[in-house]
Amino acid sequence: MSEQVLNARVSPEGSLEILSRHEVDLLKDKGEGGLYRLFRQCALAVLNCGNESDDAEEIHDAYRDFDIRLVQQPRGLKIELLNAPASAFVDGVMIRGIREHLFSVLRDIVYSHSLLATAKATDQQKPDDLTNLIFHILRNAGVLTHGSHPNMIVCWGGHSISRQEYDYSKEVGHELGLRGLNICTGCGPGAMKGPMKGATIAHAKQRVAGGRYLGITEPGIIAAESPNPIVNKLVIMPDIEKRLEAFVRSGHGIVIFPGGVGTAEEILYILGVLLHPDNRELPFPLIFTGSAENADYFEMMDNFIRAALGEEAASRYRIIIDDPAEVARQMSQGMEQVRDYRRQKQDAYYFNWLLKIDPIFQQPFEPTHESMLGLDLSSRQPPHLLAANLRCAFSGIVAGNVKEQGVAQVKLKGPFEISGDPKLLGPLEVLLDAFVKQGRMKLPGHVYRPSYRIVPAKHPAT
Amino acid sequence: MSEQVLNARVSPEGSLEILSRHEVDLLKDKGEGGLYRLFRQCALAVLNCGNESDDAEEIHDAYRDFDIRLVQQPRGLKIELLNAPASAFVDGVMIRGIREHLFSVLRDIVYSHSLLATAKATDQQKPDDLTNLIFHILRNAGVLTHGSHPNMIVCWGGHSISRQEYDYSKEVGHELGLRGLNICTGCGPGAMKGPMKGATIAHAKQRVAGGRYLGITEPGIIAAESPNPIVNKLVIMPDIEKRLEAFVRSGHGIVIFPGGVGTAEEILYILGVLLHPDNRELPFPLIFTGSAENADYFEMMDNFIRAALGEEAASRYRIIIDDPAEVARQMSQGMEQVRDYRRQKQDAYYFNWLLKIDPIFQQPFEPTHESMLGLDLSSRQPPHLLAANLRCAFSGIVAGNVKEQGVAQVKLKGPFEISGDPKLLGPLEVLLDAFVKQGRMKLPGHVYRPSYRIVPAKHPAT
Amino acid sequence: MSEQVLNARVSPEGSLEILSRHEVDLLKDKGEGGLYRLFRQCALAVLNCGNESDDAEEIHDAYRDFDIRLVQQPRGLKIELLNAPASAFVDGVMIRGIREHLFSVLRDIVYSHSLLATAKATDQQKPDDLTNLIFHILRNAGVLTHGSHPNMIVCWGGHSISRQEYDYSKEVGHELGLRGLNICTGCGPGAMKGPMKGATIAHAKQRVAGGRYLGITEPGIIAAESPNPIVNKLVIMPDIEKRLEAFVRSGHGIVIFPGGVGTAEEILYILGVLLHPDNRELPFPLIFTGSAENADYFEMMDNFIRAALGEEAASRYRIIIDDPAEVARQMSQGMEQVRDYRRQKQDAYYFNWLLKIDPIFQQPFEPTHESMLGLDLSSRQPPHLLAANLRCAFSGIVAGNVKEQGVAQVKLKGPFEISGDPKLLGPLEVLLDAFVKQGRMKLPGHVYRPSYRIVPAKHPAT
Amino acid sequence: MSEQVLNARVSPEGSLEILSRHEVDLLKDKGEGGLYRLFRQCALAVLNCGNESDDAEEIHDAYRDFDIRLVQQPRGLKIELLNAPASAFVDGVMIRGIREHLFSVLRDIVYSHSLLATAKATDQQKPDDLTNLIFHILRNAGVLTHGSHPNMIVCWGGHSISRQEYDYSKEVGHELGLRGLNICTGCGPGAMKGPMKGATIAHAKQRVAGGRYLGITEPGIIAAESPNPIVNKLVIMPDIEKRLEAFVRSGHGIVIFPGGVGTAEEILYILGVLLHPDNRELPFPLIFTGSAENADYFEMMDNFIRAALGEEAASRYRIIIDDPAEVARQMSQGMEQVRDYRRQKQDAYYFNWLLKIDPIFQQPFEPTHESMLGLDLSSRQPPHLLAANLRCAFSGIVAGNVKEQGVAQVKLKGPFEISGDPKLLGPLEVLLDAFVKQGRMKLPGHVYRPSYRIVPAKHPAT
Repeated sequence: MSEQVLNARVSPEGSLEILSRHEVDLLKDKGEGGLYRLFRQCALAVLNCGNESDDAEEIHDAYRDFDIRLVQQPRGLKIELLNAPASAFVDGVMIRGIREHLFSVLRDIVYSHSLLATAKATDQQKPDDLTNLIFHILRNAGVLTHGSHPNMIVCWGGHSISRQEYDYSKEVGHELGLRGLNICTGCGPGAMKGPMKGATIAHAKQRVAGGRYLGITEPGIIAAESPNPIVNKLVIMPDIEKRLEAFVRSGHGIVIFPGGVGTAEEILYILGVLLHPDNRELPFPLIFTGSAENADYFEMMDNFIRAALGEEAASRYRIIIDDPAEVARQMSQGMEQVRDYRRQKQDAYYFNWLLKIDPIFQQPFEPTHESMLGLDLSSRQPPHLLAANLRCAFSGIVAGNVKEQGVAQVKLKGPFEISGDPKLLGPLEVLLDAFVKQGRMKLPGHVYRPSYRIVPAKHPAT
Repeated sequence: MSEQVLNARVSPEGSLEILSRHEVDLLKDKGEGGLYRLFRQCALAVLNCGNESDDAEEIHDAYRDFDIRLVQQPRGLKIELLNAPASAFVDGVMIRGIREHLFSVLRDIVYSHSLLATAKATDQQKPDDLTNLIFHILRNAGVLTHGSHPNMIVCWGGHSISRQEYDYSKEVGHELGLRGLNICTGCGPGAMKGPMKGATIAHAKQRVAGGRYLGITEPGIIAAESPNPIVNKLVIMPDIEKRLEAFVRSGHGIVIFPGGVGTAEEILYILGVLLHPDNRELPFPLIFTGSAENADYFEMMDNFIRAALGEEAASRYRIIIDDPAEVARQMSQGMEQVRDYRRQKQDAYYFNWLLKIDPIFQQPFEPTHESMLGLDLSSRQPPHLLAANLRCAFSGIVAGNVKEQGVAQVKLKGPFEISGDPKLLGPLEVLLDAFVKQGRMKLPGHVYRPSYRIVPAKHPAT
Repeated sequence: MSEQVLNARVSPEGSLEILSRHEVDLLKDKGEGGLYRLFRQCALAVLNCGNESDDAEEIHDAYRDFDIRLVQQPRGLKIELLNAPASAFVDGVMIRGIREHLFSVLRDIVYSHSLLATAKATDQQKPDDLTNLIFHILRNAGVLTHGSHPNMIVCWGGHSISRQEYDYSKEVGHELGLRGLNICTGCGPGAMKGPMKGATIAHAKQRVAGGRYLGITEPGIIAAESPNPIVNKLVIMPDIEKRLEAFVRSGHGIVIFPGGVGTAEEILYILGVLLHPDNRELPFPLIFTGSAENADYFEMMDNFIRAALGEEAASRYRIIIDDPAEVARQMSQGMEQVRDYRRQKQDAYYFNWLLKIDPIFQQPFEPTHESMLGLDLSSRQPPHLLAANLRCAFSGIVAGNVKEQGVAQVKLKGPFEISGDPKLLGPLEVLLDAFVKQGRMKLPGHVYRPSYRIVPAKHPAT
Repeated sequence: MSEQVLNARVSPEGSLEILSRHEVDLLKDKGEGGLYRLFRQCALAVLNCGNESDDAEEIHDAYRDFDIRLVQQPRGLKIELLNAPASAFVDGVMIRGIREHLFSVLRDIVYSHSLLATAKATDQQKPDDLTNLIFHILRNAGVLTHGSHPNMIVCWGGHSISRQEYDYSKEVGHELGLRGLNICTGCGPGAMKGPMKGATIAHAKQRVAGGRYLGITEPGIIAAESPNPIVNKLVIMPDIEKRLEAFVRSGHGIVIFPGGVGTAEEILYILGVLLHPDNRELPFPLIFTGSAENADYFEMMDNFIRAALGEEAASRYRIIIDDPAEVARQMSQGMEQVRDYRRQKQDAYYFNWLLKIDPIFQQPFEPTHESMLGLDLSSRQPPHLLAANLRCAFSGIVAGNVKEQGVAQVKLKGPFEISGDPKLLGPLEVLLDAFVKQGRMKLPGHVYRPSYRIVPAKHPAT
């Protein structure tokens, strides 16, 4: 794979172009404690947004000569790029949205580093501290704004979907945008881009000047799901768990489009969180939607959830097929419930402090052959904890599919093994097989090499 | 045809909500000298934007109970609507873009009326006076802005085109928008909407805050080509000739997509203007473009132009097939030539005073059976005058197809007759037949009832 | 008198830099129908703002070499100045406020000319037409804005006042500004500048971003009362009567500081208008105010009004001595009454259509020795008409003091003669004498040469 | 002393209304580690801005019932005030500038606390770390903005000066503002308010929309020098040394007006910094200015500097008497030198990283009877170190005059004693006596009770 590349020097947009000398040094530092490697990797992902590949390794190889340098200048910082992907440029000039993303990367990497260092030095690792850390990163990124009503709709779904599914997600975004709602996604292509595109057109029609297209990503996923330039607020969270928590604390409702195993992970995450007994009263609009062709997909998903987590889980979402306007109307009404509830509880509109997130959802899950096999997938635990464990299973599969570390491990030692209660593993296997058959595991055109294997329980549940 | 309707009261957006009492009275006046009828008709067209029909009479019938009233209020004027098309609203609230259009209609109708009355009272009817009048209407509408470089690309083409042609026009708009260019169209659907949609997305990616989507229409065409709500600057010119002049004086380059007889009219207009000897040196980027499937269409058009108007005419445009980025690059470069020329001649960037428009292009052509038959379609005249007459022939056919007056006459007396030099009429007939066969005369789904008939010359060219 | 001068070329600020070629030609035309002379004269006044003189002739002499030229450029119009007063510049760069004023002059001169020509051509000279014309000029100047509540306080008073009086007017402006109120004045120095300065500081403290400092002037007075650069909306009305009507239709309340005969003219104008029987119910906050030292002045004025126009006239104003905060509080409350009344009557907040102005106040009064002597100053007429005639008497004296035409006549034929009812003339003479003694007739430092003489009635009131 | 008080609940302006729950808890915490006491004290100072007293204790007594509470609300944080000084309100509504200050206090207190805690936890106490900390506080406060040229003029001088001195400082501010320069001061009354007022008027004339009025204070001084509401960017630094460093790192030039011992402290600070050998080449415009009446004052100051620090010190400043325009012109030219130098050295315009500040100027000086007596005031040290020690002497006297701690110590143990080289102490005593005689030690009206005493050196310099 040989790609067109360009050299360029770009000026910042936005606010954190202002770095201290110490911060600049950190970003330049290619050593152990330095941030250069992380910065280069995320910057490359951001620049690579026009590219279709979601294979981090492939991208890495294609741009092995890519380099990024910081140049301090009297008016602020500049970034110098060598051998950058040409797709980030139009007639030699970098697309401004991508330029902003580049500086968002820089902002979040520097800030998260300092927060994490402080947290370590002062031993702040309690669940509340973690939530606090997420709050600080979002605040520093300018995501938390006072004054506006709840209106941020998180859209989850596959990054690699059919043209028809993509068009449907665009229509949903259009209807949400016509009602003045904003969009938050994982900021890659597919179901993460469609709703933003639709909302952009709708906001133009409604003359919404400050439409917000929030993208939340993390270093492990950014290469595979390169932010689309419509995203006008990009946040890089330190890891996948903090990214998920950022979604549910800053978003006010969630729409889920068809996707693959990553989407399944997200579904289990949000259900697991909402099933915590403390959240029983808390309104959190959650809609699964797709065009008529996707009806089967959601039936399958619905069946799996009812089988694995029970009816209460199923009561937290609605499935709406082939009706974008209805999705948007339901979300609009849901926003009012959220607003009433927060007003009543005096909770902030811009950050969902009230949502209880069990610590298990906050702990980074490091997928290895050991940790995957060790997951407790038995029915004899509260549904929200079972959801947490299933979430980890899906997370591991995602890692084995697209994340650098995960792919490497699977290459080395073969597929991850998953084991547990056959009553659970049965439906799970059915679901995963369907994903493979429907081509939901990887980009179209590749043959999927499974990164997981379901194995009989070693110690049968007694 | 029975339509969903709504009542509503809307507040103005923008600036000309401030009317004098006298102006309000004029708009309310349903009598001879009053403006109520015109206002109602244009307002209905604007509100009907979601509707697919381009048949003015059909729309008129469907909303015969529609009424519009002005309500003076301390903070400014409000508009009360009765039985308005429901498609202008989202959950009962009018789309803000449409709301703006409503007040643009009001602004232009009142202002044009006062200008025309003054022109009549002070006997200003010379060509320069007409150009001046166009300048005043555009200035009053806020279209002329100082400070920015030439960047307004006029996009012409059919309002009723295939999905594929529409997608191509969107891609061209996207590439233009990525280069910071703005879009001006006749503001209806099809090739008038696609480029704006594409540019909206591109402007979002480039963080262009003040992207301009200029729509120029006139009372005779607005019902059939209802403005799309992306248009953020809508101007209603008094008639078709002033509308065409407004395009070429405020635009800096023109892209022409496939269309029907209306598009042909526009092509002959711009070529006729550019062929005037005084305009020989004046740069005016003109590109015909379409996807691979449209290559034949443009070959046919090219042949007709070469046959009818000669090689010099053909030298004023470029045909680019299936290459949106190249269209945009060519336009970008063209803008620099326009800029250099105007700077050299000290002409304004925002209004093309230097362009010589022969008075024949400024005089309203009233298509009747007499005037159509009377058109001089002989080759023994300068190309720019022949273009003017051919333009009138196409204009008459458009009127017979979609305009209230024209449709009524054809209903009453049968098709318009066109006569002239067989060397010209031959290629013309070929072109028109092709339009009919390709379904370019009316909305898909209707069978086309021809509004014209080519007849042998009564007084053969001697 | 020899002054420092500079040459410069300045670009426009604001919106009407966009002139048609015809308009530019008019402004360049030094002939009979042309606007050059008027434009040059007003432009010079605007540029001369740093200068202390209020003698139009003196200014005229000092800058006889001043010239102004229009230069059409691709991005818009530029103005070239030759031998312009150096006080308009800081280190060679024109103060931006003055630059704006220059283009306001251009805007209003061109627009008024076209309105007046149309009015003449279409024979619109009725009272309603005059009010309409004022509306149009104000609208074109961007003075009428929808959406905001009544908050424009007109401040009248002398342009040539003591330091102490000036400081007091500043304090009143500060208190008005702290309450979010805006200021409108005749835009010269003294009591026309103080309140704006005070309000500017107060708006800074209150973070009022769009504070409005409206100056309304006319060609006859502008040279003597050169607009101060704080004025951020300057309007040049065609004559003194339209200027006065513009004050009372666009302002929502009036504060009157001590002044001379010009202020007296304004007092009689507003009282004459308010005394019209149709305005009896209409709220119009009117406050006379000054520091403790001015108590006598207002007692004298109060006495004169009671003697000449009766108790009803006195009931329309309040005198507040040495209490700026109370003035502002009263005005704030008055604004609420104005708002309630307009809401109840559905009249616009931005233009007082309801105020009845007797045509006598709209007709230009041309002060000559004949018209001055012919004024009906008898008590046997309704108070509002007597006020009108007294207003003309003061207007003539102002003209004789500072206006080009008036000064020339007095130079030629001696002081204007005023005659009438001794019961009226007695108090009038007392008032005028007091003005002279207190130095309220001219700039401090000059000895006042009276421009008027009170003579016994020729036909004694029988 | 009994004052008018009010209760109120105010919403935030600006950005840091968004606090985490942890931060809110800290601000509410009245215990040892909590921030309540500090917050209450600074908030009271901010609210007390209309008051003339500079006696912290007096203010403290007058508002002993004042209380401040944080109320978390869905749209953000509100502040509830009990028994707040009425002067912060206009007709019961808090002046918006003061409201902003209140939230600036909150922002800086919270942020500095977290920075200092981190610094302590990670043991960052090196000179570079301190500079970094200042950088972070300024950046967090939004003071550092990229893109603009050097234009921030620091104005130092007495908070308690004569009317004439005040008017002069206003004129200087006006001339600076006319040249587009911004103002930074210690943000109290007197010479800290005058230049901002003048610049506000000038910025209005020049239509400078984003004029910056930066106030830098610290908890120890804020009560005595309550920020004036024109300040539109208020920063509370942790202590006096960081405040001084913030001035010289974010400002681009300094104008010094007459003042008392606080001003003398500032003069010695800046001279001490500039005299460091590493700063020899670095341009830093420094002007002492006053009206004709102040000529003596500056001569006296000049003499003292030459005597104490030598001719090189005197070469770093210019004295300009009675010529505000010249001060502004010199500063304008100075800005260009600063710009050129930073461009050449690639240093930021917004933060003077290149300026070398000796650690002695960064260490907090805690004035006690011991530390004051222990100051090394001998000539046998490099001038920049001698300046540092003299600076501490003045700092101690300021503390004894107006700071809570200092006043208390002097009350308890009598005046601070200062000792040292007679060659130095002689001129010093002359200077201090002059300050007392000229009433420069305290607010006019009070009799000055000296807070210091010069004593013979215990160990005579041998």
